[in-house]
Amino acid sequence: SIDERRFRRRFDEFSEIGATENGGVNRPSLSDENKEARDTLIEWFRDAGLTVRIDEMGNIFGRRSGMDSDADPVVFGSHIDSQYNGGRYDGVIGVLGGLEVVEALNDADETTERPLEVVAWSNEEGVRFQPDMLGSGVFCDIFDLDYAYEREDKDGDTFGEELERIGYKGDEPCEAHDIHCYFEMHVEQGPFLEREDLPVAAVEGVFGFSWMNVTFEGQANHAGPTPMNMRHDAFVATADVTDSVRRITATEGTDLVGTVGSVDVWPNAINVIPERVEFTVDFRSYDDEVVDAAVERIRNEIAHAAEREGLEYEFEEIMRIDADPFDQSCIDTVVDAAETVGCEYTRLVSGAGHDANYLNKIAPTSMIFVPSVDGISHRESEYTEWEDVVTGTEVLLEAVRSKATV
Amino acid sequence: SIDERRFRRRFDEFSEIGATENGGVNRPSLSDENKEARDTLIEWFRDAGLTVRIDEMGNIFGRRSGMDSDADPVVFGSHIDSQYNGGRYDGVIGVLGGLEVVEALNDADETTERPLEVVAWSNEEGVRFQPDMLGSGVFCDIFDLDYAYEREDKDGDTFGEELERIGYKGDEPCEAHDIHCYFEMHVEQGPFLEREDLPVAAVEGVFGFSWMNVTFEGQANHAGPTPMNMRHDAFVATADVTDSVRRITATEGTDLVGTVGSVDVWPNAINVIPERVEFTVDFRSYDDEVVDAAVERIRNEIAHAAEREGLEYEFEEIMRIDADPFDQSCIDTVVDAAETVGCEYTRLVSGAGHDANYLNKIAPTSMIFVPSVDGISHRESEYTEWEDVVTGTEVLLEAVRSKATV
Ligand SMILES: NC(=O)NCCC(=O)O
Ligand SMILES: NC(=O)NCCC(=O)O
Repeated sequence: SIDERRFRRRFDEFSEIGATENGGVNRPSLSDENKEARDTLIEWFRDAGLTVRIDEMGNIFGRRSGMDSDADPVVFGSHIDSQYNGGRYDGVIGVLGGLEVVEALNDADETTERPLEVVAWSNEEGVRFQPDMLGSGVFCDIFDLDYAYEREDKDGDTFGEELERIGYKGDEPCEAHDIHCYFEMHVEQGPFLEREDLPVAAVEGVFGFSWMNVTFEGQANHAGPTPMNMRHDAFVATADVTDSVRRITATEGTDLVGTVGSVDVWPNAINVIPERVEFTVDFRSYDDEVVDAAVERIRNEIAHAAEREGLEYEFEEIMRIDADPFDQSCIDTVVDAAETVGCEYTRLVSGAGHDANYLNKIAPTSMIFVPSVDGISHRESEYTEWEDVVTGTEVLLEAVRSKATV
Repeated sequence: SIDERRFRRRFDEFSEIGATENGGVNRPSLSDENKEARDTLIEWFRDAGLTVRIDEMGNIFGRRSGMDSDADPVVFGSHIDSQYNGGRYDGVIGVLGGLEVVEALNDADETTERPLEVVAWSNEEGVRFQPDMLGSGVFCDIFDLDYAYEREDKDGDTFGEELERIGYKGDEPCEAHDIHCYFEMHVEQGPFLEREDLPVAAVEGVFGFSWMNVTFEGQANHAGPTPMNMRHDAFVATADVTDSVRRITATEGTDLVGTVGSVDVWPNAINVIPERVEFTVDFRSYDDEVVDAAVERIRNEIAHAAEREGLEYEFEEIMRIDADPFDQSCIDTVVDAAETVGCEYTRLVSGAGHDANYLNKIAPTSMIFVPSVDGISHRESEYTEWEDVVTGTEVLLEAVRSKATV
């Protein structure tokens, strides 16, 4: 079984790559630090006897032979790119945990019937190159390779150029090979497991969501001499809509969450009435009809707010993803694995998207969540108790074992 | 009397200095374009027989002798710096109108008993160097000269360096000399005159105001997995307070106006709950107690919003100016001047601050407003009908004439 100390040693060493002062890591996609993390990972993959392949997107696969070399592999992993000044656990535990699963099988001298593949997907975070989940997205044919290569960071460097620069544009075509099933262990990024004091969850699926861009256009004018009844204040309308987002999420009997996360105001001066505001709305639910209804309601509220304040407005839904239920057999496998390990567990639905969502389109998929202390992620203070990471990895090992039969 | 065509010719020529594509001007304080405008102004001052003095702040005075050379001068003018891509009229008409008053007296071969001084104050707009009204502020001993010299623009260039660079650091000490009275003609920057279809107003005073900086500090977290009842969303609280600002201005029987003009959100990402928002509140009224009460109420609302959302907050009143009633005799002089000219007029209170506010602290002061079409200012589309500028200048001429007696 899992060698808790070897795993910890590796995790600690890995956390030093791009380490930040406040205990996080800064390893955005295709940065020098991301390259260093890739180099280290590949060295460890090889040490563990894995055969390494790198595809055209820089996705890294480490393959362990099975007794039946023609059988479709069981694939498991996650990502090792980070947010800018992000946390050490996000993604990493799924990849290093996958490696540890292989090491545990090596220790036990156990060869599975099916081949196994540990994978690290490129550019999951999407903070340097948008959109996120680009490596798994091209693999699962959601995006074209050329589209991915053309993505630019804010300095105008493209994904393709940067991938080449760090030496990770591989030979292997980036396209889905036959996969028996896919598992991904990840930090929950939410508060449920901690609140219930449970070490793991079998993830049953992922919330659907709508991302909207809204622009209000009013009239800039002097904050002093312009009477209240002659204003066309784009920010007052934005405040209205923000209040509506909060009220709409209070709809009875739903799991709806809603956020106004990004807001830009012009001309943004203390004594000038805001002429223009661009802002975003994010609505999520596990029920697509709930998202539909929320989008419809906020659209109306936006129109009303614009009318009240005498503004022009633009509304654009820039992304709409349906709720994504995982494969029942894979979920059951995770539940059974938790029973085998003998740990407490629950079933959860994820509010955040993952590489597993794209994989779920081409192969039976499920995820394993471990707790995020205070529900925090995407920050240096992101933290998970090591014993929970270990328990999650034990569950991953059992899930892989049980699916690796022919 | 006023030579409408000479005045117009000069105004048009002046408008070409730093002209923008959309009919405005870009002559921020101490820019090359501001220097060019100063050079042109001084040439015209000299052509009109004025004796030019430039003080240590770059304030420009053009003096016309009176019969009684020892008598305190009647001073009138405004400013020629502009907003970035601002309007052609703001400030300029007060200075070129002052010059035209002198030309009209020259035409009539009329020497007033008191000396006259036309003035162009430095850095009224405060967009390149904060605070605004810096030239008149030092002159009236509101600010120290050193403080003014140390003001930095966003590139780190100081007011003192830039004043020297454009050759306008004058010899004359920047301190108030004895002034008999001060008049300033300016665009209204509000909608009242246009709405009442009147060409001029005698300005009775200026609104007092409070400028506040507010910071909410909550917790950044993922917009997907974080349930609504576990959020500490700094922007939701900002929206609350913005709504309160609007409601507070609806207080019965007051002239209160209130604006949230500047808003900055961190980390400002579509799928991250806002951790931190910094925003401003501007409240104004001609009744200081109304401003007091509004500040008190919004302070409470800020505290409540922070409590509801579980946030830390900071509240700072960064500027508080009392309502500033102008001198009754100067107001009466403007009213009488309008009667003499035979134009329609009203009395107004200004919602915007002016150099005249500081002058009012050291000498009897009033202002003359002319209409702003659609109430618009600080934008390229700022516009005033030329006949209204001429009428305002005729009123200025009569006001100056009547106060220039010993
Ligand atoms: N896991 C994660 O942070 N995904 C980012 C995409 C999302 O907003 O759900
Ligand atoms: N006139 C003018 O725009 N003054 C700026 C200061 C203010 O906000 O009142």
